[in-house]
Amino acid sequence: MLKKILYPTDFSDVANKALDFIKEMKVAGAEEVVILHVIDKRFFDAMAWYATKDLPEIEKDLIKEVTRQIEPIEKELKDLGFRVKVRIETGDPFTEILRVEREENVSSMAIGSHGISNIKEMFLGSVSEKVIRKAKKPVHVIKR
Amino acid sequence: MLKKILYPTDFSDVANKALDFIKEMKVAGAEEVVILHVIDKRFFDAMAWYATKDLPEIEKDLIKEVTRQIEPIEKELKDLGFRVKVRIETGDPFTEILRVEREENVSSMAIGSHGISNIKEMFLGSVSEKVIRKAKKPVHVIKR
Repeated sequence: MLKKILYPTDFSDVANKALDFIKEMKVAGAEEVVILHVIDKRFFDAMAWYATKDLPEIEKDLIKEVTRQIEPIEKELKDLGFRVKVRIETGDPFTEILRVEREENVSSMAIGSHGISNIKEMFLGSVSEKVIRKAKKPVHVIKR
Repeated sequence: MLKKILYPTDFSDVANKALDFIKEMKVAGAEEVVILHVIDKRFFDAMAWYATKDLPEIEKDLIKEVTRQIEPIEKELKDLGFRVKVRIETGDPFTEILRVEREENVSSMAIGSHGISNIKEMFLGSVSEKVIRKAKKPVHVIKR
């Protein structure tokens, strides 16, 4: 159940706790981690209204920033002996997480119970709950 | 996150899969399992309407039957080197699971995503979802 673990992260504290869980799973047979960050299409669209840059440029900036934030996580996992794959997707977080779960054929998934802040969580609706409901494989829900 | 794991079971197939997960966690530091079965107070009440026996007698029979079903699980875990505690509670499954989670101060919990059958699940409402939402500690949600 643990060979290949999907790790969707929004870089929140609770997502970091989910990473701690994954690290503990090394000894139980975890070999590979798929780090996933979803750039929320709705924020992205909203931003485009206000920004002076054009859309492809904003997306490029966002991907660069997300890559920068993922790098230390990737390094940490590799140092511990995990194989690591990084995926950055743009879209609806719920849909993208489930799509990647299936595409990557992971053994399980570790996610935080809440998003980056209560406000964001309210705005997003309950991404975690929808993911837990629809996931095919075991979900390790890490609490705040 | 794994030292003491709560294992609420309704003896369904998916609850059995959650047990497989717990067994895999031995090597990752899991030491103790609290096996919990909640006798659903609502079924119990409903049964009392039809039964010719009185309530305390029905409850005694149910506890005996549940104990019989827990015994092989308890033995299996002990044979693997786990410390095991068995709790049989009567009440609302959601409330009792969360009460025992806190009382036993567990490190995490492994539960099935669904109850013993779709029909029962519909009747019960979504016990797992409510537990996941309100649990204090990580929840490992095992899917059908």
